[in-house]
Amino acid sequence: MAIKYAKRMDNLKASEIRELLKLTEKPEIISFAGGLPAPELFPIEEMKKVVEAVLDENGMQALQYSATEGFTPLREKIAKRMENIGIKASADDILITSGSQQGLDFTGKIFLNDGDIVVCESPSYLGAINAFKGYLPEFVEVTTDDEGMDMEELESILSTKENVKFIYVIPDFQNPTGKTWSVERRKKLVELANKYDIPVIEDNPYGELRFEGERPPAVKSFDTEDRVVFLGTFSKTFCPGLRIGWTLAGQELLQKYIFVKQGSDLQTNTMAQREINKFLDLYDLDEHVEKIKDVYRKRRDVMLEAMKEYFPQKLKYTYPEGGLFTWVELPEELDAKKVLEKAIELNVAFVPGGSFFPNGGKENTFRLNYSNMPEDKIKIGIERIGKVLKEMI
Amino acid sequence: MAIKYAKRMDNLKASEIRELLKLTEKPEIISFAGGLPAPELFPIEEMKKVVEAVLDENGMQALQYSATEGFTPLREKIAKRMENIGIKASADDILITSGSQQGLDFTGKIFLNDGDIVVCESPSYLGAINAFKGYLPEFVEVTTDDEGMDMEELESILSTKENVKFIYVIPDFQNPTGKTWSVERRKKLVELANKYDIPVIEDNPYGELRFEGERPPAVKSFDTEDRVVFLGTFSKTFCPGLRIGWTLAGQELLQKYIFVKQGSDLQTNTMAQREINKFLDLYDLDEHVEKIKDVYRKRRDVMLEAMKEYFPQKLKYTYPEGGLFTWVELPEELDAKKVLEKAIELNVAFVPGGSFFPNGGKENTFRLNYSNMPEDKIKIGIERIGKVLKEMI
Repeated sequence: MAIKYAKRMDNLKASEIRELLKLTEKPEIISFAGGLPAPELFPIEEMKKVVEAVLDENGMQALQYSATEGFTPLREKIAKRMENIGIKASADDILITSGSQQGLDFTGKIFLNDGDIVVCESPSYLGAINAFKGYLPEFVEVTTDDEGMDMEELESILSTKENVKFIYVIPDFQNPTGKTWSVERRKKLVELANKYDIPVIEDNPYGELRFEGERPPAVKSFDTEDRVVFLGTFSKTFCPGLRIGWTLAGQELLQKYIFVKQGSDLQTNTMAQREINKFLDLYDLDEHVEKIKDVYRKRRDVMLEAMKEYFPQKLKYTYPEGGLFTWVELPEELDAKKVLEKAIELNVAFVPGGSFFPNGGKENTFRLNYSNMPEDKIKIGIERIGKVLKEMI
Repeated sequence: MAIKYAKRMDNLKASEIRELLKLTEKPEIISFAGGLPAPELFPIEEMKKVVEAVLDENGMQALQYSATEGFTPLREKIAKRMENIGIKASADDILITSGSQQGLDFTGKIFLNDGDIVVCESPSYLGAINAFKGYLPEFVEVTTDDEGMDMEELESILSTKENVKFIYVIPDFQNPTGKTWSVERRKKLVELANKYDIPVIEDNPYGELRFEGERPPAVKSFDTEDRVVFLGTFSKTFCPGLRIGWTLAGQELLQKYIFVKQGSDLQTNTMAQREINKFLDLYDLDEHVEKIKDVYRKRRDVMLEAMKEYFPQKLKYTYPEGGLFTWVELPEELDAKKVLEKAIELNVAFVPGGSFFPNGGKENTFRLNYSNMPEDKIKIGIERIGKVLKEMI
C-alpha cells in the first residue's frame, strides 16, 4: 500500500539518538540518559492502602467514565498547592491531563497553524519540541543564560516577527540545563508578553524538587491578563506511571484545552486521579517530596564532585539547585554523539544535546540525569565518561 | 488578551446538545443519553486483589515510566484474543492507547491535511467525528443500511474523489445505530479499499457484547495488505475508567501511531496496563463478559418491548443483536431536539441524532442507550418518551 500521510508526519521521524539509547536498556548499563525518578522512593505500601480505600469507598465511580475536566476534589487540592508559588486558582481553572506532556501537545493543537512561530529557550525540552513539531511550526530560539532568556533578544523577536503564537519556557531547573530563571526575568517576561500580546506557556515539572535556596514565584503569579498557561505534573513528586498532570489557565483558554481533551481521549484515567486525591487525603505529599529531595540532593552532590574529579578541567557544566539534570558543554569541535558511542562501549549512557536545539547545532553538549542511579554507580559512570572525554579532548 | 488560535479551533465548539445534556446529570433523571457501562458489574473485589498483586510483585515498575508501545505481556494477550475474530497478530502489532478514542485522534493526526476527505457511515460516531474535525477534513457520508455501507455509493466516491485519506467504519453494533455489517460487505469493503488503495479504520468497541447469533470476522481479518487499522478497547468489556484501548496495524503504520503517541502523552498509564494484564492472568474475562451480556440483553429486551408498547406505531427503530444502543427515526418534520426538551421536563434524556451526521441534517433521529439503567427505569423512561412522542406526532 502506498500510504498518503499528512504533511506533519514528515516532521516526526525516529531519532538516531533514540536508536542509540535503545542499546542502553541492558541492566549492566549505567544510565544518565532518561529523566526517570528513583523508583525505590515510590510509596508502594501507601499506594496499596490508597487503592483499597478508593475501591472500597467509591469503586463504581473510580472504574467508570468521568468528566473531561477531571476529578473535582483533586483539582481543588492542586489549586490549593499552587498558592505556594503565588498562583491564585480554583478547581475551575484546572484541567487534569495525561501527564504534563499532554498539555504540551494540546498547546500545539490549540495555537499552531503551519508556519506559526514558537519562541523557546535555547536549548529547550525535547518532548515539547516533538509535541509542537506535529503542528508544523517554526522555532525561534532565544539565547538563555543563568537567569533565563535574554530579554533584549526576546523583545527584538516579538517586535519584528509576525505569527509568534506563544513563548514556551521551563523556568525551574530547566530540562535540559538544570538552570532556574531569576525573579526579575520572570517579571520582565510577563511584561513583554503583555506588551506584544503573546501567550506564555510555563512548563514546571521540577520546581518542587529544590534542594537549597528559596523557590521563586511562578511566572504565572505575575500574570494579570490570563495570559500564562501553567503546566504541572505529579510525575516527579509522586509516580509518573499514573500519568497525572494538569493545565492551569484562564477560563477562555482552559475551555479550549477541555474541548481538545475531549476529542483526544475523553478524559484522564479516573482511578489514578482518585488515587492521588486519596493519597493527598491520607498522607503528607510534602513530607514525601522531602524524602525525594534528600536522595536527589546527595546524588547531585556525588555527580558534581565526580565531574570535578574526573572530567577535563576546561569543561563547563551547570550546578543545578534542584531538579534532575546537569548540562555539559564540550569544546566546540567535539560531537557529543561520538562521546556517547565511546561511553556506551564502557556501559554508560547520556543524552547528546543537539536534539534539545529545535533548529539544530550545538552538538558539543550533553545532558546528565542523576535521579535514577545510586551514588556508587554515579561515581563509576562519571569516571568512565571522564576517561572517554580525556581521550577525545 | 486577543488570543490568536489555530484555524482548527473554529471547528471545535461547545455543542448545544452538550449543554442540554448537562441538565441530565441530576440523580432523578432517567438517562438513555450516555454510552456508559453498568457500574454495578465492575469487578471491584477482583480489582482489589489485582492491584495488590501488581504492587506486591512489581510495584516499582508499575508506578514508573514505561515504553510508549505499552506493556508487552498485555499486548501479547490482546493479540491472542484477536484470533477470535480472525485476526492474526503478535504483541509487536499492537500499541496501547488511552481508550480507543485516542486511536481515533491519532488517526486524524497521521492522515489528515486540511481539506482531505474522511469517508464514513451515515450516521457515524460523534466522538470520531469530533476527533477528526480537529484536523479540518471534509466528511463524505455513505448511505448505510442493515448490512453496512452501500458499496456502489462507496465505489462511486472512491473512483471520483481525490484526497480520500481513509474509510472509517464501526462494523459491529454501530454507534449510534446498533447495526452490524454483513460478512459480504466486510469483504467487499476490503476489496474496494485494495482497488483504490485507501486505508480502512475499523473501530470495534462493542463487538464482544453480542447477545445472540454468531460474531462475524473482523474487517481486518480479510486484510492482506496491512491496510486495515483495528481499534479496540477494554472500556465496554471491563472498565472505562482505566482508559485502556489499543491500535492494531501493520508495522509501517503502527510506527506512525507510536511516534504520535510519544509526542502526545509519552505512554499510557503503566499501572492500569498491568492491572488489566493481571486480571487476565487471575480471572476469566470471557466469563465476566458473559455476565455483562446477560444484564444488557435483558435491558435491551425491556427497552425494545417498552418501545413497542409505548411508542407511536409508525416509528422505525433498530433491533440491535448486541452493543449498547438502539436508534429511532421520527417522521421527517419532527426535530429530536424538541422531543428531548419535552422529555427532560419529564426527567428523561437521550441524544438527538443530528450530531452523528458530520454534514448535518437528519434531525429527526435519536439514540437510546440501554446499558446504564436498571430495567424498571428503562420501562418508565420509555413510557415517558412515548407520551411526549404521541403528543408531538
